[in-house]
Amino acid sequence: MADATRDIEALIDLMARLPGLGPRSARRAVLHLLKKRDTQLLPLARLLGEVGHSVRDCLNCGNLSTSDICAICESPKRATGQICVVEDVADLWAMERAQVFPGRYHVLGGTLSPLDDVGPDDLTIPKLRDRIAAEEISEVILALNATVEGQTTAHYVARELEPLGIVVSGLAQGVPVGGELDYLDEGTLRAALSSRKSI
Amino acid sequence: MADATRDIEALIDLMARLPGLGPRSARRAVLHLLKKRDTQLLPLARLLGEVGHSVRDCLNCGNLSTSDICAICESPKRATGQICVVEDVADLWAMERAQVFPGRYHVLGGTLSPLDDVGPDDLTIPKLRDRIAAEEISEVILALNATVEGQTTAHYVARELEPLGIVVSGLAQGVPVGGELDYLDEGTLRAALSSRKSI
Repeated sequence: MADATRDIEALIDLMARLPGLGPRSARRAVLHLLKKRDTQLLPLARLLGEVGHSVRDCLNCGNLSTSDICAICESPKRATGQICVVEDVADLWAMERAQVFPGRYHVLGGTLSPLDDVGPDDLTIPKLRDRIAAEEISEVILALNATVEGQTTAHYVARELEPLGIVVSGLAQGVPVGGELDYLDEGTLRAALSSRKSI
Repeated sequence: MADATRDIEALIDLMARLPGLGPRSARRAVLHLLKKRDTQLLPLARLLGEVGHSVRDCLNCGNLSTSDICAICESPKRATGQICVVEDVADLWAMERAQVFPGRYHVLGGTLSPLDDVGPDDLTIPKLRDRIAAEEISEVILALNATVEGQTTAHYVARELEPLGIVVSGLAQGVPVGGELDYLDEGTLRAALSSRKSI
């Protein structure tokens, strides 16, 4: 079984590098696949290969796509004039699942992080500036995570875009829908209070 | 992105069927792979394909192998005369990792389970009987899980092998090494007490 073990161990190592899987769960997952070779393992291998070869980043917004320009950027149905800036494709998908934004997106590709030396040039900020001019954007909505990194990046981007004289907005912070005050951190409570609205 | 999404969603569904991954974690895992297409996704696809096509069940013991007979069954270094019966390839691997058994194995392929209608014929019990004769086995060690199903199956197999007049043994039950009585269930304590040894 030497060679089999070697391949299988290599497979387990690869699987163990997935988020949410450790060495033990990766082993279990691989064994599960090996037991269902025809119904799960080979289909998974095929699909991974197909997706891996067909999917690329949209040249315009950074979304995942099988063509150079993603369907969202290409769609004439999408509202123009606004760009929703997200950190990550995952965030774009989250917005799309919620179906709350009718316009087009821009994937920054992360947040500024001096420690991991991620600077402005490592993000797609220049590209964003180009798009604002090219697509006649009047508002940029910074839908970045409400984390320190996310908000720092949001402020940096906002300052960068200031000279362009367009509206730059960010998502509201406050009590999440269904949230109970008792369970909220003070930061959220402070934000919710300071940006309170008249009812 | 329509087609891309469709493939990606299909991929997420497949990944979500792995033990230890749910829909959300599968989504995260797939996104992680899509971000590391060349370093992780494609290698994983390739390796899955290779393993899926090369690995099969050992015709003798049921272990995973790239040849009809696995290396353990083929190895002349392995002790003869004893067979260690396990439920599952995972259990065989666990025994091998512990390096506690020098002989050969026999993978039952599960446990008896009338509810899921898994009967004796669905397990490799007939094959085991053949091997006992062919390999001149003097002892069968039933290393089945200490679960109700495992122990029921162990007793069934033991009764089946009785006529052959060979030694049939099972793993000892008791306090696990490093275990604290305070945290042990009463079943384990009862087993440990009833099969106590003089020191």
